[in-house]
Amino acid sequence: MTSPSFIAFIHMEREFLIYNTLTRRKERFEPINQGLVGIYVCGPTVYGDAHLGHARPGITYDVLVRLFRHLGFKVRYIRNITDVGHLENDSDNGEDKIAQKARIEQLEPMEVVQHYTIRYHEAMKLLNSLPPSIEPRASGHIIEQISLVETILEKGFAYESNGSVYFDVERYNRDYPYGILSGRSLEDMVTNTGRVLEGKQDKRSQFDFALWKKAAPEHIMRWPSPWSVGFPGWHLECSAMSAKYLGDNFDIHGGGMDLLFPHHECELAQNTASRGTGGVKYWMHNNMITINGQKMGKSLGNFITLEELFTGSHKILTQPYTPMTIRFFILQAHYRSTLDFSNEALIASEKGYKKMMQAKRDISSINPKQGVLSPEIKSLHEGIYEALCDDMNTPIALAHLFDAVRIVNSAKDGQLSLTTEDKQVIEELFENIAEGVLGLSDEQSISSNSNIINGVMEMVLEMRKEAKANRDFAKSDMIRDNLSRLGITIKDTKEGAEWSI
Amino acid sequence: MTSPSFIAFIHMEREFLIYNTLTRRKERFEPINQGLVGIYVCGPTVYGDAHLGHARPGITYDVLVRLFRHLGFKVRYIRNITDVGHLENDSDNGEDKIAQKARIEQLEPMEVVQHYTIRYHEAMKLLNSLPPSIEPRASGHIIEQISLVETILEKGFAYESNGSVYFDVERYNRDYPYGILSGRSLEDMVTNTGRVLEGKQDKRSQFDFALWKKAAPEHIMRWPSPWSVGFPGWHLECSAMSAKYLGDNFDIHGGGMDLLFPHHECELAQNTASRGTGGVKYWMHNNMITINGQKMGKSLGNFITLEELFTGSHKILTQPYTPMTIRFFILQAHYRSTLDFSNEALIASEKGYKKMMQAKRDISSINPKQGVLSPEIKSLHEGIYEALCDDMNTPIALAHLFDAVRIVNSAKDGQLSLTTEDKQVIEELFENIAEGVLGLSDEQSISSNSNIINGVMEMVLEMRKEAKANRDFAKSDMIRDNLSRLGITIKDTKEGAEWSI
Repeated sequence: MTSPSFIAFIHMEREFLIYNTLTRRKERFEPINQGLVGIYVCGPTVYGDAHLGHARPGITYDVLVRLFRHLGFKVRYIRNITDVGHLENDSDNGEDKIAQKARIEQLEPMEVVQHYTIRYHEAMKLLNSLPPSIEPRASGHIIEQISLVETILEKGFAYESNGSVYFDVERYNRDYPYGILSGRSLEDMVTNTGRVLEGKQDKRSQFDFALWKKAAPEHIMRWPSPWSVGFPGWHLECSAMSAKYLGDNFDIHGGGMDLLFPHHECELAQNTASRGTGGVKYWMHNNMITINGQKMGKSLGNFITLEELFTGSHKILTQPYTPMTIRFFILQAHYRSTLDFSNEALIASEKGYKKMMQAKRDISSINPKQGVLSPEIKSLHEGIYEALCDDMNTPIALAHLFDAVRIVNSAKDGQLSLTTEDKQVIEELFENIAEGVLGLSDEQSISSNSNIINGVMEMVLEMRKEAKANRDFAKSDMIRDNLSRLGITIKDTKEGAEWSI
Repeated sequence: MTSPSFIAFIHMEREFLIYNTLTRRKERFEPINQGLVGIYVCGPTVYGDAHLGHARPGITYDVLVRLFRHLGFKVRYIRNITDVGHLENDSDNGEDKIAQKARIEQLEPMEVVQHYTIRYHEAMKLLNSLPPSIEPRASGHIIEQISLVETILEKGFAYESNGSVYFDVERYNRDYPYGILSGRSLEDMVTNTGRVLEGKQDKRSQFDFALWKKAAPEHIMRWPSPWSVGFPGWHLECSAMSAKYLGDNFDIHGGGMDLLFPHHECELAQNTASRGTGGVKYWMHNNMITINGQKMGKSLGNFITLEELFTGSHKILTQPYTPMTIRFFILQAHYRSTLDFSNEALIASEKGYKKMMQAKRDISSINPKQGVLSPEIKSLHEGIYEALCDDMNTPIALAHLFDAVRIVNSAKDGQLSLTTEDKQVIEELFENIAEGVLGLSDEQSISSNSNIINGVMEMVLEMRKEAKANRDFAKSDMIRDNLSRLGITIKDTKEGAEWSI
């Protein structure tokens, strides 16, 4: 076995390419601070159960963090909880999603937050996604957000209007390119949509966005500020919290493609307006999941929560899918590709996942011959690291792992033999990559107990039936008594013996 | 089965007595708002693993919340996370516990907070303590704390000194009795300790306590305020957060006896200084756990974390104890009594707990005769509710439940017979009280699978040995092949057959 420091040494030297949304190309990852990586990922707005759309970023950035750690980096992974300020729509006039839910359920907004935060954590744990190093909450960083608004006001990139503060996009665009991240230009946006402001609004332009909103009297979540009793704009929290925990300049900002505009564009503008730099070296975006080719949405009737997936309790599901099947399914596509959900695809993932876990279990019982690493194993080992370090190409890494699965199966069938080094390297790949980096843990070892009991009991009852048929009542009674001592009751019915614990 | 609303009706009419630390007597509980109960409990300072001392309040107030819900009340249960401002000692000059730990481990303080918060949640979950309705963090409520300091300053009960703000205890004591909760008087304290202020201090009197502390340059956790960049005093968070989530006047404040002074005394003083009322109708305090008669402490070498208890990995432990054994042990004493930990006492609890769970499992297989409730069952049912509603007397409730256990065992042995109503009431007591209110879930149903496999496999291997001895190789091969299909490998050794999954 190579020591961790040796692994760190060989792999930190490896070229690790990341596709940077900001530059629209793959770039060699170079950490701002040697050996350390700071990652900020946009977490959930906790006003409902986690759904399939949460699973993809939850798994994608988990693999990124695991990979960096495997390569020897020390990672600080921040994923926030949005518990205030996320408006129902992006017009700044929508209702706060959490406050709205609270009114419906007659709860304090923070009771809603607590409920869904716990459910989110449970779902992420089932998916084997590690908790972040820090999980800051928007409502817990109001002071930091107010300070940031003050700075942006001082720098002249925002204005106050009736107790609210807005980011002045046109003013900003005179100094810095607004739209640089999402590939838009303000000029085009103005041309395409005009400058229409619907109804009475406090803001000067429809492109401006709220940094601070004065609270309407019925708004429950509210804090004092220099401008009004109110609440922060949604985009603000990520600028404030990423700087607080990772510094003014940090390595990686991740999130779903749906957050690219306006959320991340506004975040980048806020960073730049307050400190003259976008703050983020590499912007990463995972693509969306579609369902049978359609966008997922509550109105389309194809909105599936993770719990529904795990239990199979949604009308479009033909069966339940385990968390590891979902994880495997997500990793079978590159994170920047769209991924179409269908029962067929999920069933194929289930098969693939089970096959891999079976090979992982089987290899330990294979007797290797003395010898060094064979070129085939060496090449698939290399291929896996190359794929993972090529913008986290998990489908290619999985394809190489399946080469290993095939080799294990052939060795098991006696069609080829493995050397001691072959066996060791394959075991390490299953352990360190499949489980360690890709996070594919073996579900059977958890759930198998009941299958095994069922199987053994079937055999035991068959033997009891046989004993009875042979009039060997001593044996049939012995079986019954032994089981009874273990808390197993046998009941003879017309259909045969039944047992229960 | 009685409907929940009927249960609610009969039991909300029941007199529920709570010992109120403030008045030093048992009082009839009368909610401030009909049908609703607001409870605030001091949670952990997250700078280390949860230990035996955390288990007692974690379980005591969990039972209180479960009991209120069982009686038909709607409960809002707030338990905070102290993640800033808790000084190493109570002198206001100590080092912040979390910041100190961070420096040692070279982490951001909030990484320490995240790590130990997750561990605390896991420990509470194992102990079957339900999560609170809201779990506010001190660092997430700095604005609320600053507002509270401003109010106390305006009312004249605090003063600023070198960027810090102190509560003026002597000034407060001229209008309100400082010490009313803990049963002290400032006059006695002055007489006993004198007015000595050690060294150079910003505060006027040693009895004054910090509401806001100016941060030393090396202090990591810091926020802007009207007085300095600094951090709130430890006592402040509970005053600010309880008022925010439960209102200016709420029903119950709970915590460990060790928090009575100075923490709760100062909290009460802050409440009163800011709004003219102590704010809390009933103050509840659980007593301490001693270990072999000694106070638990790191320096005494008898400091036991919950993980050490669950795994048995501490030198003073003769065996591991399961979470339910710990829970049962804690409930066997009244929460206001001290509770002495010893291996003997824990082993006794383990036996008692197992006996109760066995009876809970056994009762379902008892065939009752038609009939109404017998006086004995009626009386123990009544006794249980009476005990629980008499200041949560869990040891007496458990004693009555053991009467039910004895009755079940006698019925099982055929020494007495139960009526259908008897059986139903006992089942409901096990379900609604033992499990529902006391939170004693059946651990065997979780862990038993492996015991059962071991037991059945022992028998199966014995039968295989016998078949071989009888030269019935068809049968011994059949057993081996069947097991192999279930993923069980048999290995014949000199000591007999061994099996593995």
